[in-house]
Amino acid sequence: MKYPNGVKQKNTTSKEIKYANRGMTLESDINISNSYYIDKKIAYIYKKPTPIQLVKVNFPERKKAVITEAYFKEPSTLDYNGLYKGYYIDFDAKETNNKTSFPLGNINKHQIEHIRNITNNKGICFLIVRFNKLDKTYLLMGDDFIYHIDNYDRKSIPIDYFKEYGYEIEYKYNPRLDYISVIDRILGGKNGY
Amino acid sequence: MKYPNGVKQKNTTSKEIKYANRGMTLESDINISNSYYIDKKIAYIYKKPTPIQLVKVNFPERKKAVITEAYFKEPSTLDYNGLYKGYYIDFDAKETNNKTSFPLGNINKHQIEHIRNITNNKGICFLIVRFNKLDKTYLLMGDDFIYHIDNYDRKSIPIDYFKEYGYEIEYKYNPRLDYISVIDRILGGKNGY
Repeated sequence: MKYPNGVKQKNTTSKEIKYANRGMTLESDINISNSYYIDKKIAYIYKKPTPIQLVKVNFPERKKAVITEAYFKEPSTLDYNGLYKGYYIDFDAKETNNKTSFPLGNINKHQIEHIRNITNNKGICFLIVRFNKLDKTYLLMGDDFIYHIDNYDRKSIPIDYFKEYGYEIEYKYNPRLDYISVIDRILGGKNGY
Repeated sequence: MKYPNGVKQKNTTSKEIKYANRGMTLESDINISNSYYIDKKIAYIYKKPTPIQLVKVNFPERKKAVITEAYFKEPSTLDYNGLYKGYYIDFDAKETNNKTSFPLGNINKHQIEHIRNITNNKGICFLIVRFNKLDKTYLLMGDDFIYHIDNYDRKSIPIDYFKEYGYEIEYKYNPRLDYISVIDRILGGKNGY
């Protein structure tokens, strides 16, 4: 967990702040699932650091640099990436309390460009979107996401689009959120990894 | 470039600080080459954010979070990753002023574990090492790096090991440091990307 408690609470209560809607629960489900994939040698997927803009760094002791002024930067990539069966995997996880559509407000244009680049370069790129109020979690592949961005509303993606073009991810005991089995099906596997 | 001048100067002059030996010149050569690969649609390779440990974050205005205490974390992955012809690419770039060997002091155990994981999961993982005093730059694949770590000295890799198992990367006008052509040869391509 990236933030000390105090910070995290502020982040999750203030709508103004980036990452506010990131959804720690979904994130922790994914982190737990990733640990399972690594333990079982199924896949190796890890979380990228949060991009920070450094402004002031002090050196109270020569051994240690202390960052005294820095800001959260808009991410230009997605949170997770790694490998499954040699395939490049790159995705982000988002939660929404909206019941009818996924608002695109928390995916910036650099991230959309990143999704285009990964997809154009034959990487496996997707979004995992949880509709909290509906208790449904969908995986939407990057090309289907881009198709909607390019052809329909850029502000939100209706849940029906997820139902038609996405894949619902079932919750299991272990791994909690088995998104790799969905990727395996998409790759034509027998869901046996 | 991640650091404001003042910070960068301090970083590059003090041996005590992580990233001190990262070598901005090699890094900028790689960044320029990566821009070329992206422009020419040859490969999509980008730099990961620097991992930061947040301690204090203030909210002077509700619109903006200001990080007032944070520290550089030991990186657990490598600096660059991305895609080439659908292959997962993951590497780090290091410079040394040593003429006879590459000291392993600035590659930590988490990064070594990362290289193992990428290699075991069929990713293309390597180090680009520049011997400044010799004006030679080598690419060493992850499995050859791991082989040395597991079988020989863990403190340094002699330059002869790079000469025998690595690949020298020639400097060109554009791309400056054409490491992708080396990867292409390793993949059995005709060096034409």
